[in-house]
Amino acid sequence: MPGYRRRESQKAGLPPGTLVHIGEQQPEAVQIHLIEYDKEGIHERRLADIEEAFVFGDTPVVTWIDIDGLQDVEVVRKIGEQFGIHPLVQEDILNTTQRPKVEDHGSYLFIAAKMIYSSEEQRIETEQLSLVVGANYVISFQEKTGRDIFEPVRERLRHNRGAIRQYGADHLAYALLDTPVDHYFGVMESLGDQVDQLEDLLLEKPETDLLQSIQQVRREVLFIRQAAWPLREVVNHLYREASPLVAQETRLYLRDIYDHLVQMIDTVEISREIVVGLLDLHLFNLNHRMNEVMKVLTIFTSIFIPLTFIVGVYGMNFHHMPELDLPWSYPALWVVMIAIGVGMVLFFRKKKWL
Amino acid sequence: MPGYRRRESQKAGLPPGTLVHIGEQQPEAVQIHLIEYDKEGIHERRLADIEEAFVFGDTPVVTWIDIDGLQDVEVVRKIGEQFGIHPLVQEDILNTTQRPKVEDHGSYLFIAAKMIYSSEEQRIETEQLSLVVGANYVISFQEKTGRDIFEPVRERLRHNRGAIRQYGADHLAYALLDTPVDHYFGVMESLGDQVDQLEDLLLEKPETDLLQSIQQVRREVLFIRQAAWPLREVVNHLYREASPLVAQETRLYLRDIYDHLVQMIDTVEISREIVVGLLDLHLFNLNHRMNEVMKVLTIFTSIFIPLTFIVGVYGMNFHHMPELDLPWSYPALWVVMIAIGVGMVLFFRKKKWL
Amino acid sequence: MPGYRRRESQKAGLPPGTLVHIGEQQPEAVQIHLIEYDKEGIHERRLADIEEAFVFGDTPVVTWIDIDGLQDVEVVRKIGEQFGIHPLVQEDILNTTQRPKVEDHGSYLFIAAKMIYSSEEQRIETEQLSLVVGANYVISFQEKTGRDIFEPVRERLRHNRGAIRQYGADHLAYALLDTPVDHYFGVMESLGDQVDQLEDLLLEKPETDLLQSIQQVRREVLFIRQAAWPLREVVNHLYREASPLVAQETRLYLRDIYDHLVQMIDTVEISREIVVGLLDLHLFNLNHRMNEVMKVLTIFTSIFIPLTFIVGVYGMNFHHMPELDLPWSYPALWVVMIAIGVGMVLFFRKKKWL
Amino acid sequence: MPGYRRRESQKAGLPPGTLVHIGEQQPEAVQIHLIEYDKEGIHERRLADIEEAFVFGDTPVVTWIDIDGLQDVEVVRKIGEQFGIHPLVQEDILNTTQRPKVEDHGSYLFIAAKMIYSSEEQRIETEQLSLVVGANYVISFQEKTGRDIFEPVRERLRHNRGAIRQYGADHLAYALLDTPVDHYFGVMESLGDQVDQLEDLLLEKPETDLLQSIQQVRREVLFIRQAAWPLREVVNHLYREASPLVAQETRLYLRDIYDHLVQMIDTVEISREIVVGLLDLHLFNLNHRMNEVMKVLTIFTSIFIPLTFIVGVYGMNFHHMPELDLPWSYPALWVVMIAIGVGMVLFFRKKKWL
Amino acid sequence: MPGYRRRESQKAGLPPGTLVHIGEQQPEAVQIHLIEYDKEGIHERRLADIEEAFVFGDTPVVTWIDIDGLQDVEVVRKIGEQFGIHPLVQEDILNTTQRPKVEDHGSYLFIAAKMIYSSEEQRIETEQLSLVVGANYVISFQEKTGRDIFEPVRERLRHNRGAIRQYGADHLAYALLDTPVDHYFGVMESLGDQVDQLEDLLLEKPETDLLQSIQQVRREVLFIRQAAWPLREVVNHLYREASPLVAQETRLYLRDIYDHLVQMIDTVEISREIVVGLLDLHLFNLNHRMNEVMKVLTIFTSIFIPLTFIVGVYGMNFHHMPELDLPWSYPALWVVMIAIGVGMVLFFRKKKWL
Repeated sequence: MPGYRRRESQKAGLPPGTLVHIGEQQPEAVQIHLIEYDKEGIHERRLADIEEAFVFGDTPVVTWIDIDGLQDVEVVRKIGEQFGIHPLVQEDILNTTQRPKVEDHGSYLFIAAKMIYSSEEQRIETEQLSLVVGANYVISFQEKTGRDIFEPVRERLRHNRGAIRQYGADHLAYALLDTPVDHYFGVMESLGDQVDQLEDLLLEKPETDLLQSIQQVRREVLFIRQAAWPLREVVNHLYREASPLVAQETRLYLRDIYDHLVQMIDTVEISREIVVGLLDLHLFNLNHRMNEVMKVLTIFTSIFIPLTFIVGVYGMNFHHMPELDLPWSYPALWVVMIAIGVGMVLFFRKKKWL
Repeated sequence: MPGYRRRESQKAGLPPGTLVHIGEQQPEAVQIHLIEYDKEGIHERRLADIEEAFVFGDTPVVTWIDIDGLQDVEVVRKIGEQFGIHPLVQEDILNTTQRPKVEDHGSYLFIAAKMIYSSEEQRIETEQLSLVVGANYVISFQEKTGRDIFEPVRERLRHNRGAIRQYGADHLAYALLDTPVDHYFGVMESLGDQVDQLEDLLLEKPETDLLQSIQQVRREVLFIRQAAWPLREVVNHLYREASPLVAQETRLYLRDIYDHLVQMIDTVEISREIVVGLLDLHLFNLNHRMNEVMKVLTIFTSIFIPLTFIVGVYGMNFHHMPELDLPWSYPALWVVMIAIGVGMVLFFRKKKWL
Repeated sequence: MPGYRRRESQKAGLPPGTLVHIGEQQPEAVQIHLIEYDKEGIHERRLADIEEAFVFGDTPVVTWIDIDGLQDVEVVRKIGEQFGIHPLVQEDILNTTQRPKVEDHGSYLFIAAKMIYSSEEQRIETEQLSLVVGANYVISFQEKTGRDIFEPVRERLRHNRGAIRQYGADHLAYALLDTPVDHYFGVMESLGDQVDQLEDLLLEKPETDLLQSIQQVRREVLFIRQAAWPLREVVNHLYREASPLVAQETRLYLRDIYDHLVQMIDTVEISREIVVGLLDLHLFNLNHRMNEVMKVLTIFTSIFIPLTFIVGVYGMNFHHMPELDLPWSYPALWVVMIAIGVGMVLFFRKKKWL
Repeated sequence: MPGYRRRESQKAGLPPGTLVHIGEQQPEAVQIHLIEYDKEGIHERRLADIEEAFVFGDTPVVTWIDIDGLQDVEVVRKIGEQFGIHPLVQEDILNTTQRPKVEDHGSYLFIAAKMIYSSEEQRIETEQLSLVVGANYVISFQEKTGRDIFEPVRERLRHNRGAIRQYGADHLAYALLDTPVDHYFGVMESLGDQVDQLEDLLLEKPETDLLQSIQQVRREVLFIRQAAWPLREVVNHLYREASPLVAQETRLYLRDIYDHLVQMIDTVEISREIVVGLLDLHLFNLNHRMNEVMKVLTIFTSIFIPLTFIVGVYGMNFHHMPELDLPWSYPALWVVMIAIGVGMVLFFRKKKWL
Repeated sequence: MPGYRRRESQKAGLPPGTLVHIGEQQPEAVQIHLIEYDKEGIHERRLADIEEAFVFGDTPVVTWIDIDGLQDVEVVRKIGEQFGIHPLVQEDILNTTQRPKVEDHGSYLFIAAKMIYSSEEQRIETEQLSLVVGANYVISFQEKTGRDIFEPVRERLRHNRGAIRQYGADHLAYALLDTPVDHYFGVMESLGDQVDQLEDLLLEKPETDLLQSIQQVRREVLFIRQAAWPLREVVNHLYREASPLVAQETRLYLRDIYDHLVQMIDTVEISREIVVGLLDLHLFNLNHRMNEVMKVLTIFTSIFIPLTFIVGVYGMNFHHMPELDLPWSYPALWVVMIAIGVGMVLFFRKKKWL
């Protein structure tokens, strides 16, 4: 059950602002990716050392430093020093169990969000995304090295698609926040497909045991909900509160994310209701089958038990049983027994059991 | 389960404001319908090309352009250009998975709503309705070509019924919003009838398996709820917020829609409770039948099993069984067995099982 | 299930303000009852035609026009014309599916409420009550002709009991609103009695099938809730908002109604919890009985099945069965079988099944 | 089910402010108890007639009139006249089904609360407490004559314990309100003990039928909740709203009651969850026992039914059954049957049924 | 069920502000621990008598008095006298059933919180923590002597780790509040591990009876929730309200605790949902096993009951049964019976019961 609990307690007792990476250990090196752009042009470089990035820091163009991987605490510390980021924020960046939130620190905004995507084995995976948004720079921290969902944004920057290069760092931050939200829809759709399949299975093969699959989907819906709800508040705060770092034009776009998230949450809530409905259906099926089994048992028992009694009667060894000597009594007994059997069947049919 | 999930993810990675039609593909051509009216008169035309509509754009009369079908992205783009509609709004118009909302863009209002109607096969169908309301024009976008619920409004315009031609574009927008809300009531009533039928069936023929029908109704109630709740907020916003585009007289009418929607939502919530009650009733019936089956089984088994034991006793082949030789022992055994049977029946009757 | 759905859809497409009576058709004529009073005296008349009432309209005394029955649309239209009532309000008066609400139209207040009373067959019946409250007049519209709950108010007016004739039209409106609230308590009490009876039945005769009665009570509690909740808001609005039509002294009385309604709603919520508890109790009983039946079945089967096997053994026809020839083997077998039977009974008693 | 419904309807149609005692009839005489005190001294008297109390009315000391019993409407009317209490408040004092509330009438505060205590038979009993708090007097109305919880307050006054005689009438009112809240804790504790006992019983003797006891506790928890929730609002209002009748020092004490009530409500909510958990446990036990019974039945039936069939085979009377003539076939059959029996037992043990 | 109820009632009737220790009695002596520090240095002493602490009271350095154990009412009274703490606050310190809260008394803040930790037997234990925070002092009261979680804070003070000695008393209070919150995570993680184990057990050995363990976890989750929810409000109040005792820099740190608590509560809510899911899974397993048992029973009974009937037929002693004399009738009957048995098995397999 990874992800729903937080391995925070390992830090109990340490002073606040102590930089410790909380999350899965990864063997790869951190990947640092630098893009500088303005309306006219774009520079792009992969850096081996984060300090190479600081030379560019004061140019008027927009600078985007993308840190892919949090395993190297030093990278975060150096960036924090260079850009004057508060130690508690640095700590939050490294703590991958952070709840989505936004903090206005005057000269920069700190935004934490969750990326969610389906892994190859159809399980939902999560990744922490932290953004530090300054006047002319964005620093993005992705928790896990390798899995990178920002390539479409880079493509739009490279080929100057859409209006992204016309705007400042705030618009870049919007584009980076919009990307995981778009992915939420993909995950939600694949969950929806699973729900559809489960439902079809339940209706066509009611005897399949789908409880675990249903519980799994239920938990994953909870999961997305947990990422989307606080992010909604984050985006709401960004487009409503008057931070000078967020331009008026960008607010309209943030509102667009907001609408998406509200729509998302609607879908999540409905999915929850549907999954609960599936559980009911499953239990109902179980009950229904039991009922059917009981009916078969009852019919067999009820028909044959009296007949067995009757043949038992004529298996008794009393010396004085006049019926036994009559030549027509054996066929007559068959007639009686068949009549009883047919009568029972008719009775059960009247009771709607057959 | 179409309609509760949104095929939004196909747009992941595209720049915002990219015009892509999200929704069912339709082969028909888009139908464009133009009405211009004021207190004195009314002009009405079907247009082959949207650009024909723009000649009329600046006259003092009210212009209503009704676009029936969203399959042609170009139509939306051209209207957007002509009327200065923000690219994100154009995108929202084409995205038929939009949640009901209202946006005030200064020179125009953008309103998104859902039309709901029962299809021929008694299933609930949904259709996106978008309205762009300017000072002297209304542009309405209906998602699906063909299905048109605005004919009564046109009739009222043509024959100058009610006060509709006395007022401006805001009142027309009100009339267009009022129409789907009126349809919600129709759908809700037909759902209510289904609920009544289900309930009657459950009481009269408790053995029918109605689980799927109940789940279906439950989902459709959820469906209407999902359309009505946010629309309530939209209408509330329209009649409370001071947009100069909405005249004071129109607000009274908007409040009327608001009251209808609140009433609607009340009904929806009660229907949900009733449907849950039906489910309980159904499960109860199932349990009850099982109980009855068990009783029959128990009675048969309990009466005949001891009797079968007794006849088994006298079927044994011991050489020294004195009872076997007595002439009256066979009839005596019958008396004993009948006494046992009758005793059991009386016992069960006392226990209220018969 | 009358009353929870609204037959509003028959009006779909009509212009707003169209006067159509929505509700049960009634054959009787509308009864119009006019009372004029001040501190000194009181005039009372039954009118055949509503226009007779308008002669009195401008006197300084308080005028109360009570319209008992909505079947004649003309009456409402004429009153609307005479007193300058907005067409949408007239429409609301005729629409008997109106949710309780209050509207301040400047020169008059429009109040909609629900009257609830138990019919002779112990079913709950509902009736729409609309009040138009002006500076010196109150017009009350009762949906159904005949059933009249305002007689006690008239008696108080006639005999000058309480302070009612000292105050103005607002106090009369208060008295008219207070009357249905008082009736809610009566209905709630009779429901409470039903709940008590159901509970006693469930405890004394657990085998009775009370599911339908419980569901019925549950629905009726929902019903009162649906009437009381919005009325609470109406009364709250009346005593808090500063309408010049409601005098300060009257607000204290309105607050009294408010307190009653809050108390009412408390009771309703508790009743709902108790009814759900009854359902649980009922299902529990069902389960419990099933359990008991199963035990009887198991005991019989478990005792007799091994015994039947044993007697079957000695009913076999093998030529070489030494036990059959021993003279004491038959009585010995009886001893063994009785021992087995008694052992089983003791075993079940130890297991607490007997 | 006394207490959860209100016998209010008997007043339907009476003018507001009519003084009618709603509640249980009591044969005893009303007890009137007068205490006057200031920092220096204290006078205490039992009065036969309420009018004796009015002589003291204007002294600068604090006067506390305690009315124990509401059966004499005249007492309330006379006090109302003397102290200028609004007729609606007098009505509320007599209506013992009043919901806890506070009303600021300028020259005095009216406070209604509920006293709750366990009766001798371990049932919860309720009693209405009304306080009228003026500048230098407190009048307390206790519903039921005899049961008196204010003796500790009187003791503190008599012996000048705590700061109570240093403060004014508002502090006395605080002390009187604090007393029932302290009793809530006692009742809640005894309920908690009952819950503990029920839980122990359920775990130790799962076959006991505790449904009614659980439902009883559940209802009593609801009961306390219904008293505590609105009282919390009352106290909150008293310590937040700026009534000149409540001194700043007293507010701190009121806040203390508020904290107690919040804590109380927390406990109540948790108790509700625990009681629901007990119900689940009970139903689970029921199911579990049924399961066990079924297993025993199945094992017996499944073992003996095939054996009975086999012995039936060799009880047949065919002339040509070669097995019957072999000398070792009877013992061989026993070996086979024992093998079948043991095999079945091993099979069931593998299935974890034994 | 210790901890969820409050033994408050023993104080019913005592004047407010009476100092009585409510909680478990402890035999050990109270431990008093004094630390004084500023940027330059730190003094640390264990005191035998609380009065030794008061000599240091007015130095400009920060003074931290830690009282470990509440069994000595005198200690609290003396501190209260020395530091001018309101009697009601002294009472609250001694009442270990206090709900988490914060009170601003001008010259000092009073903060109550709950410490939670797992005991050795894996049960959750709770301990009251009260803080009195003045301009340059913090007095902490721990309920239970011995169990001390503040050692890491002392270590940080001693070795000047983190910024703690740079700041004032408010920062120390923050560090003391942060410590129990860190422990909540530890407890929550251990609960999460228990949930995981329960889930694995339920999936691998569905027949284990885990109801009590599940209920236990459920209650413990409730427990943490009850501590965390009000503490969230406390911290929220501390960092939002403008008390001059809390410096701006400290607020940022308080916000950090706030974020932790919100995250905590999210986790708690999800755990509750998961535990409820486990209960469902458990009941489902129970049902499922019952179903399987029923199937086995039905199959055995249904196959052998007709066969037993057939062999019973040929065990009858009629003189005229022609089948008995035919030489091939015995083997033929075997063929028929095997065919019936195989047919039944095929039938059940088709029904998916085998």
